[in-house]
Amino acid sequence: MKIGVMHGPNLGRLGTRIPDLYGTITLDVLHRELREAFGDVDLSFFQSNSEGALIDQLEAWKDEGLDRVALNPGALTHQSYALRDAIEGLDLTVVEVHISNIFQRESFRAQSLTAPVTRGLITGLGIYGYHVAVAYLRSMV
Amino acid sequence: MKIGVMHGPNLGRLGTRIPDLYGTITLDVLHRELREAFGDVDLSFFQSNSEGALIDQLEAWKDEGLDRVALNPGALTHQSYALRDAIEGLDLTVVEVHISNIFQRESFRAQSLTAPVTRGLITGLGIYGYHVAVAYLRSMV
Amino acid sequence: MKIGVMHGPNLGRLGTRIPDLYGTITLDVLHRELREAFGDVDLSFFQSNSEGALIDQLEAWKDEGLDRVALNPGALTHQSYALRDAIEGLDLTVVEVHISNIFQRESFRAQSLTAPVTRGLITGLGIYGYHVAVAYLRSMV
Amino acid sequence: MKIGVMHGPNLGRLGTRIPDLYGTITLDVLHRELREAFGDVDLSFFQSNSEGALIDQLEAWKDEGLDRVALNPGALTHQSYALRDAIEGLDLTVVEVHISNIFQRESFRAQSLTAPVTRGLITGLGIYGYHVAVAYLRSMV
Amino acid sequence: MKIGVMHGPNLGRLGTRIPDLYGTITLDVLHRELREAFGDVDLSFFQSNSEGALIDQLEAWKDEGLDRVALNPGALTHQSYALRDAIEGLDLTVVEVHISNIFQRESFRAQSLTAPVTRGLITGLGIYGYHVAVAYLRSMV
Amino acid sequence: MKIGVMHGPNLGRLGTRIPDLYGTITLDVLHRELREAFGDVDLSFFQSNSEGALIDQLEAWKDEGLDRVALNPGALTHQSYALRDAIEGLDLTVVEVHISNIFQRESFRAQSLTAPVTRGLITGLGIYGYHVAVAYLRSMV
Amino acid sequence: MKIGVMHGPNLGRLGTRIPDLYGTITLDVLHRELREAFGDVDLSFFQSNSEGALIDQLEAWKDEGLDRVALNPGALTHQSYALRDAIEGLDLTVVEVHISNIFQRESFRAQSLTAPVTRGLITGLGIYGYHVAVAYLRSMV
Amino acid sequence: MKIGVMHGPNLGRLGTRIPDLYGTITLDVLHRELREAFGDVDLSFFQSNSEGALIDQLEAWKDEGLDRVALNPGALTHQSYALRDAIEGLDLTVVEVHISNIFQRESFRAQSLTAPVTRGLITGLGIYGYHVAVAYLRSMV
Amino acid sequence: MKIGVMHGPNLGRLGTRIPDLYGTITLDVLHRELREAFGDVDLSFFQSNSEGALIDQLEAWKDEGLDRVALNPGALTHQSYALRDAIEGLDLTVVEVHISNIFQRESFRAQSLTAPVTRGLITGLGIYGYHVAVAYLRSMV
Amino acid sequence: MKIGVMHGPNLGRLGTRIPDLYGTITLDVLHRELREAFGDVDLSFFQSNSEGALIDQLEAWKDEGLDRVALNPGALTHQSYALRDAIEGLDLTVVEVHISNIFQRESFRAQSLTAPVTRGLITGLGIYGYHVAVAYLRSMV
Amino acid sequence: MKIGVMHGPNLGRLGTRIPDLYGTITLDVLHRELREAFGDVDLSFFQSNSEGALIDQLEAWKDEGLDRVALNPGALTHQSYALRDAIEGLDLTVVEVHISNIFQRESFRAQSLTAPVTRGLITGLGIYGYHVAVAYLRSMV
Amino acid sequence: MKIGVMHGPNLGRLGTRIPDLYGTITLDVLHRELREAFGDVDLSFFQSNSEGALIDQLEAWKDEGLDRVALNPGALTHQSYALRDAIEGLDLTVVEVHISNIFQRESFRAQSLTAPVTRGLITGLGIYGYHVAVAYLRSMV
Repeated sequence: MKIGVMHGPNLGRLGTRIPDLYGTITLDVLHRELREAFGDVDLSFFQSNSEGALIDQLEAWKDEGLDRVALNPGALTHQSYALRDAIEGLDLTVVEVHISNIFQRESFRAQSLTAPVTRGLITGLGIYGYHVAVAYLRSMV
Repeated sequence: MKIGVMHGPNLGRLGTRIPDLYGTITLDVLHRELREAFGDVDLSFFQSNSEGALIDQLEAWKDEGLDRVALNPGALTHQSYALRDAIEGLDLTVVEVHISNIFQRESFRAQSLTAPVTRGLITGLGIYGYHVAVAYLRSMV
Repeated sequence: MKIGVMHGPNLGRLGTRIPDLYGTITLDVLHRELREAFGDVDLSFFQSNSEGALIDQLEAWKDEGLDRVALNPGALTHQSYALRDAIEGLDLTVVEVHISNIFQRESFRAQSLTAPVTRGLITGLGIYGYHVAVAYLRSMV
Repeated sequence: MKIGVMHGPNLGRLGTRIPDLYGTITLDVLHRELREAFGDVDLSFFQSNSEGALIDQLEAWKDEGLDRVALNPGALTHQSYALRDAIEGLDLTVVEVHISNIFQRESFRAQSLTAPVTRGLITGLGIYGYHVAVAYLRSMV
Repeated sequence: MKIGVMHGPNLGRLGTRIPDLYGTITLDVLHRELREAFGDVDLSFFQSNSEGALIDQLEAWKDEGLDRVALNPGALTHQSYALRDAIEGLDLTVVEVHISNIFQRESFRAQSLTAPVTRGLITGLGIYGYHVAVAYLRSMV
Repeated sequence: MKIGVMHGPNLGRLGTRIPDLYGTITLDVLHRELREAFGDVDLSFFQSNSEGALIDQLEAWKDEGLDRVALNPGALTHQSYALRDAIEGLDLTVVEVHISNIFQRESFRAQSLTAPVTRGLITGLGIYGYHVAVAYLRSMV
Repeated sequence: MKIGVMHGPNLGRLGTRIPDLYGTITLDVLHRELREAFGDVDLSFFQSNSEGALIDQLEAWKDEGLDRVALNPGALTHQSYALRDAIEGLDLTVVEVHISNIFQRESFRAQSLTAPVTRGLITGLGIYGYHVAVAYLRSMV
Repeated sequence: MKIGVMHGPNLGRLGTRIPDLYGTITLDVLHRELREAFGDVDLSFFQSNSEGALIDQLEAWKDEGLDRVALNPGALTHQSYALRDAIEGLDLTVVEVHISNIFQRESFRAQSLTAPVTRGLITGLGIYGYHVAVAYLRSMV
Repeated sequence: MKIGVMHGPNLGRLGTRIPDLYGTITLDVLHRELREAFGDVDLSFFQSNSEGALIDQLEAWKDEGLDRVALNPGALTHQSYALRDAIEGLDLTVVEVHISNIFQRESFRAQSLTAPVTRGLITGLGIYGYHVAVAYLRSMV
Repeated sequence: MKIGVMHGPNLGRLGTRIPDLYGTITLDVLHRELREAFGDVDLSFFQSNSEGALIDQLEAWKDEGLDRVALNPGALTHQSYALRDAIEGLDLTVVEVHISNIFQRESFRAQSLTAPVTRGLITGLGIYGYHVAVAYLRSMV
Repeated sequence: MKIGVMHGPNLGRLGTRIPDLYGTITLDVLHRELREAFGDVDLSFFQSNSEGALIDQLEAWKDEGLDRVALNPGALTHQSYALRDAIEGLDLTVVEVHISNIFQRESFRAQSLTAPVTRGLITGLGIYGYHVAVAYLRSMV
Repeated sequence: MKIGVMHGPNLGRLGTRIPDLYGTITLDVLHRELREAFGDVDLSFFQSNSEGALIDQLEAWKDEGLDRVALNPGALTHQSYALRDAIEGLDLTVVEVHISNIFQRESFRAQSLTAPVTRGLITGLGIYGYHVAVAYLRSMV
């Protein structure tokens, strides 16, 4: 089974960016942990600071038969109708992940433009949220 | 380790209430599954249609040394500052769970009054969200 | 045919509470009048100041096969998503009744959270509204 | 006793307009039914698609001593302060009737500009609402 | 010099409509007073409850070379972009008149849709406002 | 094939009303051009300043089997739920036309109450928009 | 009869301040004109850029038996609840005057905080508005 | 003279709940202090986490002739129209008390739904506010 | 101990201004009563209709070592960020007093711009509120 | 004459993306059809999922002397002030095209950030809208 | 060249007022620094806590031929339309200066009522902002 | 010392884009001027129309030890939470620059999403703002 793990803008700096909020584990470590935890899954990873590149990759994954995605859109969560349209238009099954609790921060972060077209959302559980998302996507028939 | 699983108004009907949305598993079955999955945890369960009774129970749990709670506030999510104050005032560690995706329904459901005082929130993953919440609470040092 | 007549918070004081607005007839008298007017209906009555108790009773009525309700939610009309969820989740046929005209008073009273899940609403016709609601519910096939 | 039954824009098509929502009974049939049900009342009927014509008729009725009106303003409910002013300025006793439940449809329909100057409002009970309105107006001393 | 005096919906009842608010002088008397006060002006009068008829008349006046109007739009003040467009599109010089003080009543009355395309507005000075409007229009070069 | 071309308030003055914005072609010329361009279509034309008369005509057209309409509602676009209800209730296929760009003017013009029940909308292309609307309606099977 | 004419902030520059909008007549000339036009009235004049000084003067006038005021609050119209309270608390009869049309300018100017406690308001008629205000105040019994 | 002192949800934990904000004195100590300070008053105390129970108690107090209440509604301040209706419907004289300053915290706390039907409100003075409320209620004739 | 008692705009008229709302006691009498009640406190009094003068006085008091103030800002409560900044910038301990209940009047009065930087607020208890404020300020260590 | 046809994010999938809404014709087919229909026009085509790339292309086209564009911004319509600034800053003549009716979908789609700087907008007419846009741009002198 | 430097309410306390935010340099020192830095400019300084006095001074400066002003309106930034009108009406060239970053503080501080009539605004650069403003004003031809 | 100067979308056209608003100096000239004015600073320049590329560059600069940036985000100012997160997450010291006065244009331009995480903002001083920003950044210890 193919599952994608996608990270939006600024998440390439995970591990060094505001560690009190986002923790000290880097994307590389996270990806290695996920590969170890989900050895039976064909995992793909992608991070970009560009909305367009993220949509391009979702289209590419769809073409490769990958249509389940654990997605942390970063700040695009609050500004990108284009990403929302990509999820909906490509008929992807997405679980949205946020490392910190988006309800405990600035008011604009409590609104997710993408969540209405995802299967579900996990927020505030740290990088454990990625594990949950992949596990859930794997469990779907 | 003590962990509480609490359900707010109308969740006593889980399994028969709008099954297309909430599924067909009852609270009893869910609780049995959780006990089986988390044999090493001292689990307590509580459901009530009354905001006051839920707060009373949180106080009682706190008195018994139980301060980690997987909480599905039901519709109180969107109307109860009192429940929010209980979580904050009792200094509980709460993971908020919603079975359906609260971002895909009526607009009032996209606002959680309780989430700003919880550790995190899981929505849309069905009853799997309770498993995640308990697992996460168990994993905290 | 079973029909329930339910009254929310503060309606136990009907007859003495702001009589210029709500009239001087008490709940007991109203209930007696309804029994006389609808001798062919198996009428049940319930009043509570507690949201939770009202939902409990709707669940109990549903279990007894009573699923038609003339409901005056009182102030819960404007604050209770939980009551709304109960009506919808139990698949009840409800006619909402307000004694005074909710559109002629404070602005918050013009918004009903429950009306979107009821069959209809009657407001401003005094206690005659209860008669209409029961008559309408009785007439449904 | 004189009672008017007035219908606003688009209600001339009752019976053929979105029958799933408004039913299949025409205005003519409705008026006949009302005449039969209220043989002791001097009923007058009026329908127009024009706000101005409706106000003209309310003025004419007032001049004829008819000041009790069962009124379905149609879409003017949500746009006409002029009709509201006519009701208030002519000191009419009005019961507002809506066939469908205005709270279950587009959000603009949940706001009635006319209701604050009417005696009361009935919504969602189908054409039965007209019967209730006339019966209530007849019963007033 | 030609000047029109136009009254919108419900103003035909001036003198009997809520006299505490609007006074006891009728339109006929008002018009007679204006003719007497402004003997050197070719005054035209028009009242209608219909937005369409009012716009028709403004067009007719324009065709007759009458382009100065004292206008009391009644409730259309708060609902009619069409009347606003007529004033602007016909390039009329309009002074808007309200008998009562529109700022002392319901909140919707404090907003005038027409005032942004008029020369000015007078409110709360009773029927004296019409005298002011005509005098002002007469004084313009 | 029957197609109606309908114009709302103030459009009777096309050609002389704010020509910088609306151009100098009159309704008569426009209608002649449309007849010439669409010789194979049975075209009907109607303009009125009255919302009621416009709805009356839509009903009459429907009775005559004309259910495709190129409609420029003028200012009713922003104020008339009644016209919207007529389009929806008569099950008409409507293409909404605006001569000027409604998004470049006062903020109230950017909101169309009628567009949600039309097939589509053309704005800012001048009277060419009418040609497009008729051509599109003609092309539908 | 005593009547006060009061001008708020920036009106001391009348005649030189944005003459296209406010005209070229100075306060001194205006006051002379008013004295000439209303020789039978005991007129007092006051201008200040300070909210506090304006309220002080209204109190002083009240003590002198002057309780009718033609008031142009300038920008205080849109920001001063204190001036509003002075008018109401001193039980003054005020006609509010604006030289330009407050409805044709920035949106904040369309809201008057003082108008709800005045007798009426005149806007857009230039300095003629002062004449109207004084004439109206003189005419009151 | 009878005076009630009522506390809403979460106030049973006074003394241990966020002591930096609410202080370290418990309800029991507070009640003892009030009894000592107001030996001439027949004081009654009540705390509940349930809106319904609080309304029940207000009704019971009213039946016993107690109609003066020092009320700290806790979070119900911001969510309960039912409690507001109870105060108004039972014609109670209420002084609303908040221990912390509700204007210095989350924005939702600055709005009190109950204050419009109380005699007055004290906020931010700690438990001294209860003393003030009782003293004031005692002083009323 | 030095304590200031400051009154904003229009409060110089206390005793004669809307006595049904504010009572009949004048500022002089109030000040005398406060001196009598708090003989051990070095009380200073100040009233002005000018925001600037009030801020000047707060600065002067601060320079004199007076940093505890019972403050009734009058209408500045709802409009003055400058007064708010003075309180905060001078690090004053302020108890805000309103004679009438600001929550029972026009909606703008329910918002206090100053309260977020005060210790607390008392509203609706009449001039007793000043006594409470001074007593509270005196009691602080 | 040079005309550009530009498509924003997700439109590369035209023909397979939600075909019930957007139809089954691909971009390639659409472009071929446009070339056939407008043989006398030098057409350029561009699609990208990246806002930046779209602006780069508009700049490049402008440098090549192409300044007329049929533009479907996709979801950028609702989120991109940068695209709006490009259109305005490069002084392009743009006709905005939407395949589906943006007024019949989620509320955010009814707001176009780009339309205020375009010549006009066509929505809901399917891919026919592109033909109209090119024809209109070709017809401009 | 004459340039004025004006400070609004509470800025007289610069140097002692919340030094973490505003720094420890006093107005006197700042003025001395500015005189030293701009020896070729005829600098005038003014600070007042009174809106009226500030406007008076702007008028006086204008009369003296000083029409370039570095202005820190303090809290008047967010409340004073009168100051805005003074700037616009006197046709002054103003650079607005804020010491702290108004976008990083309470939400009301992010809105400047005066900025729309100024040449530009500098915020957050500490007292360096005054140097910039004077340098910029000096550089204008 | 390293300082970056970054320009967002559409600023590559500086000098030709709406010169009345932005002036006629190109980016190249501006950069040359800055190099000349700040010979002691190691200046880097970057412009892109792509949000993603801008964030990439900020990350690259951070890696090179450049963490002081004069940033003109162009239209991203009003739409990009991602850029805001980059500034905050990379712990950059940013001075935001706008050439025109963002407070004098469309209302959306008065809101800066990035300013809350910058040191300060300069708007309306033309390209002089860049000089100020670099000078300020250079001056910081």
